[in-house]
Amino acid sequence: MNITIDREILLENLNVISRGLPAKSPMPILTGIKFEATDSDLYLTSSNTDISVEVLINDVSLEITEPGKTVVPGKFFIEIIRKINSKKVNLYLIDDKILVIRADRGEYKLHIMDYMDYPNVDFVCLENPLKLDAQILKKIIKETVFATAASEKKPILTGVNFKNEGGKLIATATDSFRLSQKIISIEDYNDFNITIPNKSLDELLKAIDLYDDELSLYFSNNKLLIKYKNVLFQTRLLDGNYPPTSKLIPNEFPIIIKFNKDELVDAVERVSLLSPRDKERDKEITYSIIKLSIKKDRIIEISSTNASIGDAKEEIIPTNVEASNPITIGFSSRYLLEALRSFMSTEVSLNLSGEIRPFVITGENDANLTQLILPVRMN
Amino acid sequence: MNITIDREILLENLNVISRGLPAKSPMPILTGIKFEATDSDLYLTSSNTDISVEVLINDVSLEITEPGKTVVPGKFFIEIIRKINSKKVNLYLIDDKILVIRADRGEYKLHIMDYMDYPNVDFVCLENPLKLDAQILKKIIKETVFATAASEKKPILTGVNFKNEGGKLIATATDSFRLSQKIISIEDYNDFNITIPNKSLDELLKAIDLYDDELSLYFSNNKLLIKYKNVLFQTRLLDGNYPPTSKLIPNEFPIIIKFNKDELVDAVERVSLLSPRDKERDKEITYSIIKLSIKKDRIIEISSTNASIGDAKEEIIPTNVEASNPITIGFSSRYLLEALRSFMSTEVSLNLSGEIRPFVITGENDANLTQLILPVRMN
Repeated sequence: MNITIDREILLENLNVISRGLPAKSPMPILTGIKFEATDSDLYLTSSNTDISVEVLINDVSLEITEPGKTVVPGKFFIEIIRKINSKKVNLYLIDDKILVIRADRGEYKLHIMDYMDYPNVDFVCLENPLKLDAQILKKIIKETVFATAASEKKPILTGVNFKNEGGKLIATATDSFRLSQKIISIEDYNDFNITIPNKSLDELLKAIDLYDDELSLYFSNNKLLIKYKNVLFQTRLLDGNYPPTSKLIPNEFPIIIKFNKDELVDAVERVSLLSPRDKERDKEITYSIIKLSIKKDRIIEISSTNASIGDAKEEIIPTNVEASNPITIGFSSRYLLEALRSFMSTEVSLNLSGEIRPFVITGENDANLTQLILPVRMN
Repeated sequence: MNITIDREILLENLNVISRGLPAKSPMPILTGIKFEATDSDLYLTSSNTDISVEVLINDVSLEITEPGKTVVPGKFFIEIIRKINSKKVNLYLIDDKILVIRADRGEYKLHIMDYMDYPNVDFVCLENPLKLDAQILKKIIKETVFATAASEKKPILTGVNFKNEGGKLIATATDSFRLSQKIISIEDYNDFNITIPNKSLDELLKAIDLYDDELSLYFSNNKLLIKYKNVLFQTRLLDGNYPPTSKLIPNEFPIIIKFNKDELVDAVERVSLLSPRDKERDKEITYSIIKLSIKKDRIIEISSTNASIGDAKEEIIPTNVEASNPITIGFSSRYLLEALRSFMSTEVSLNLSGEIRPFVITGENDANLTQLILPVRMN
């Protein structure tokens, strides 16, 4: 193999390939990137147990002097290409043992891995795609994925369920304490009901971050393949039936409070300051329980109590209140903040149906987006 | 105690106070901030075992309705003041048990700590200061502190030594594998020879980050007090005699190579990519050994070898070479990078006196800054 290519083009493709590259793997070969240079094209492939990515490069800058195949240490290769600043890079094999990277006055030699060890990656057959706008899919993912379960207790809840019911795509995520649901209309297509792992959706978001055009989705029994530009992004699907959720969402709300979203977010963040918190693995901050009450003068009070530190209380003047009776509910401030941040709307509604009944958040400019939170019993 | 003050003024002072606030402490009272409101002024104090900070606030926005004293949980208090966005805050005590923070429609109550438990902080007597420009001190610290020892094996090496020898201030740091030294002229002042803990210097850098005016330094036996604006910043000094270092620095260099600094940094960073590395506590990247050789055509080659991954090699055309004979030296790329980054100069000189003799880096526009690195023996 001997190829030359613009460094920027190669790097752009490597950034996509890195989405399927495991940091570690029980199969060390998978920490490599598979190269296949034909007479005219260069294919790069990466794969971990959940995600497989393939890019086809046939950029005008690509010159293939000698076709060939190899597997190169992924992390090191990407770091080198990222760090060099030449216009072009030349890649060639010596004795099928070493990959040489030449860039300006630099020369890097990487011990390659055995191409024959690389497992065959089966991509779903490219037939009968569902077309979806990338911007819309990114939005749906951001509106729902945070509500998936972090724990593997119920594996099916670690994914977002995508269901087509007669032209309506319903995306649902729940960790059984809260639920996010978004419904959009899609083109005429076979019904489907799949659950995509949250990690795959996180990686997909990064892969298509700068892409705002059409995606093609190909379905198989246990995989979903997304094709765009020169990229194939495939993820395994979660096994099992997603639990029915439609009955969880109340449809009558005697109490509706409308807020300026940013004011509500600020107040909840401040009141949460005194909550005990853990810095978890991913630096996520766990807020504890806060209370929301309607006071006599229709002012809303948000408060928290921390026996060892102290108390916090904020009053907010809502933009509107419809309430037949006073109410106090308690809930996780983190759930509320994450739900609120999924809305574009300036004004959001908290729709309550009882102190221990799930409450629902909607936004005036976020049609068909429902965020539901289960309150906790307060004493 | 009952005071009202502009939130921004309070926050600005808390950012300085936080430099002396331990996250944890064997003396829990020290995780608090001491408040003392007199009729006209507010004093805030923080202290850990190494650093004590006091600020005196008498801003026009300060209104003291009731003088008083207390100790408040430092981290929570700072987080609340940081997060609220009112113009003013009102702080008052209830029953000497609770501090109330009122800001717009928010009310926060913190259990206070026992003022009587707060240890007396002895600040060095404010007599006979050495005046030093803050910009100059910040520069000296940044040029030296990275070369202090991280390990406590030889505690004295965890600090930067500041010595006044007849009007010359000599700042020296060494971890015994490398050495940084900066010499500046100062006003007429008593000779001194003190070693300041590196952590105190890091915190001092943050405290005076936005301050570019004159500092007053007050010396005592085992403490240094730095006074500026309304702030007293005091650090303990390290015990013991700093080892003599003047004989370590060679004064004859048969080989002098001049480089464009940025080109050299880039090449060394790239060649270091293949080095095995550990992400340590502070995300510091440990680079391993690289080699530098003068080739026949006076091109400089920088290279590294990693048995399991591969080799890296970069050629650099130096801006000038004075060399009587070829030479190859090996050294830690991290040491070289950290040393190079301490220079403002566009052009730097590597001054070599032998394959296993320390080499010295100087910069055309960095007068009196010396960076020395001990090479390792190459086979």
